[in-house]
Amino acid sequence: MSPRIVVTYHVTAEADAIEARAKGIAVEQSVEMPIPAITEQRVLDEVVGEVQDIAELSPGLYRVRVGLASETVAGEAGQLLNMIYGNTSIQPDTVLVDADFPPDVLEAFGGPRHGIQGLRERVGGADRALTCSALKPQGLSTAGLADLAYRFALGGLDYIKDDHGLADQSSAPYDERVPAIAAAVRKAREETGVPTRYIPSLTGDLDRLRAMIRLARDEGLDCAMIQPMIAGFPAFQALVREAPDFAFFTHPTMTGAQRIDPPFLHGTLFRLMGGDAVIYTNHGGRFAFTRDVCVTLGRRATRAWSGLKPAMPVPAGGMTLDRVPEMIECYGRDVMLLIGGGLLLARERLVEETRAFCDHVADLSGAVPAVAE
Amino acid sequence: MSPRIVVTYHVTAEADAIEARAKGIAVEQSVEMPIPAITEQRVLDEVVGEVQDIAELSPGLYRVRVGLASETVAGEAGQLLNMIYGNTSIQPDTVLVDADFPPDVLEAFGGPRHGIQGLRERVGGADRALTCSALKPQGLSTAGLADLAYRFALGGLDYIKDDHGLADQSSAPYDERVPAIAAAVRKAREETGVPTRYIPSLTGDLDRLRAMIRLARDEGLDCAMIQPMIAGFPAFQALVREAPDFAFFTHPTMTGAQRIDPPFLHGTLFRLMGGDAVIYTNHGGRFAFTRDVCVTLGRRATRAWSGLKPAMPVPAGGMTLDRVPEMIECYGRDVMLLIGGGLLLARERLVEETRAFCDHVADLSGAVPAVAE
Repeated sequence: MSPRIVVTYHVTAEADAIEARAKGIAVEQSVEMPIPAITEQRVLDEVVGEVQDIAELSPGLYRVRVGLASETVAGEAGQLLNMIYGNTSIQPDTVLVDADFPPDVLEAFGGPRHGIQGLRERVGGADRALTCSALKPQGLSTAGLADLAYRFALGGLDYIKDDHGLADQSSAPYDERVPAIAAAVRKAREETGVPTRYIPSLTGDLDRLRAMIRLARDEGLDCAMIQPMIAGFPAFQALVREAPDFAFFTHPTMTGAQRIDPPFLHGTLFRLMGGDAVIYTNHGGRFAFTRDVCVTLGRRATRAWSGLKPAMPVPAGGMTLDRVPEMIECYGRDVMLLIGGGLLLARERLVEETRAFCDHVADLSGAVPAVAE
Repeated sequence: MSPRIVVTYHVTAEADAIEARAKGIAVEQSVEMPIPAITEQRVLDEVVGEVQDIAELSPGLYRVRVGLASETVAGEAGQLLNMIYGNTSIQPDTVLVDADFPPDVLEAFGGPRHGIQGLRERVGGADRALTCSALKPQGLSTAGLADLAYRFALGGLDYIKDDHGLADQSSAPYDERVPAIAAAVRKAREETGVPTRYIPSLTGDLDRLRAMIRLARDEGLDCAMIQPMIAGFPAFQALVREAPDFAFFTHPTMTGAQRIDPPFLHGTLFRLMGGDAVIYTNHGGRFAFTRDVCVTLGRRATRAWSGLKPAMPVPAGGMTLDRVPEMIECYGRDVMLLIGGGLLLARERLVEETRAFCDHVADLSGAVPAVAE
């Protein structure tokens, strides 16, 4: 008999309606039909979702736990999403907040292949917070982006990523941009001795994603950024399986449309799928996540979890140099600080500003614990 | 210079903050960096998103129109979603409600290849509302599902689709299920003379999706169901391009509904991508869409739109036989009525109940207008 995935939802309902609503979710996320119309006993016993627990969190708000047979997922990432939320995402009363996955699901997806340790080793192994910035804007020429990358790398960053808006536009097509930026970073590395890594952003269908990985590998790269909610979980799963030499950074674009608790989506689900680093919108920037949500997200990404490697939290989205002490205090040294526009504003002083960022992070984060208390 | 996609958002804001917020969205959805940090004039002139209009809809609620350069999309479906919503989906104050696409975007995606007329022709061409039901539950054996399909087809349905929970589970793997169901439907067609079509559900990554299409084609099928929010827009785009002989049904799983206006997502965006029929959750069933939302969604799917074929609205989700008159009155005859569990409850009387459904639809929908007034 198939093990159960235990999914936790928060449901808004009247007290006299919550039991029926919980049962409704359990049915919707499994057999999706009236129970009396089911003729096969095995389906009734082993496949119909079961309400395992209902707890009132506050008046009118309930935590509902539903057990779903993992055989319905069959080890496929898209189908996992379909089963744990799928149709229920359309209901305005229900938020997906967590899931406990049985061993067969953990094995099928496997989590990060490299994780925090692998990301540290790629850039020299220092046990401190890591640094990252982003190449932008979209519309800039390949030469312009490569020049930016060169200057960021001269400043001594650990990681430099494509902006998620860089796709395959005529202004800087991937096949032209990635070799040029990789070369620019190599040149800077020779000058600085810092093993800066470039992270190209992958876009398009699976054929194109594969071709992009191949080109990146040919350029000596071993990191890539993926947008799971746009590429699709199935494509993400395929890439992680096929490119075990690559560390994957997940980007949060399109994560907001579906009412999934951010710590679960980024810290658990993207990690389960193989995200080695999870980029998310930090509190106090351009986005609305609270500090609590961000701290919880970071801890989910790094917590001990059945032998799955920890994923690196990458808080971002309008961060600035003056936030560095507070961010390190907030997260500890198991964090990668991503500042994009805040560095780009320095314009002709970009190298110096970047260097100040890197020095600041190194100075502050050596002594703090891996995860802040 | 690139044409602009004009995207409409509904934004909740204070009156003295809306201008800055609108500008923030325009920047987020294009260059995603501080404007003063942009050094290239072409990017400032042609790529930075521009606020075209702000209108107050009610106190604290604004309609904001933003023009985004279509060059940033580069004809790629995932990147289209990334640009029109992407990061802004993470903001709780903004709902994506509409977009006007310039000719280059319409041409790049092309809309339905078959549309309403193609779906009618597949089942005999009668100018009436069409009928559909769903094979379920997941967990049922291939033989059980094929038997159901046989009896549905004996009842004279136009279309029979896989439940979206049927993926590639060991209880009824695709490669075993689809030939068995296709054979069962062929057998019934020979007995009834009704050209019933079977619509298998496609799941997994692009390799698997392609293999599923090939197998379906080998079985003489020419329709398939796709879950755009799970398969990913890039995979959907690839399938529509590569399988012009197939009519595609879109399934609403993971569409969320809270942050992207359903008429836009199903009636415009899925249609633009090539959805020939759009399945959505009808009002008054298990889901919360209002009648207004559903009627608007149906009209978006069928409205005249720059030569793109109309897509067939398929309202579903807890529909029953007694809803047939009201649904036809609501939508007109350009509709496909999908009743799943409501028929399955008939159990041993399934053929008769299905026949009653089909007769009812044929009787009522011949005389109504294509789209209800």
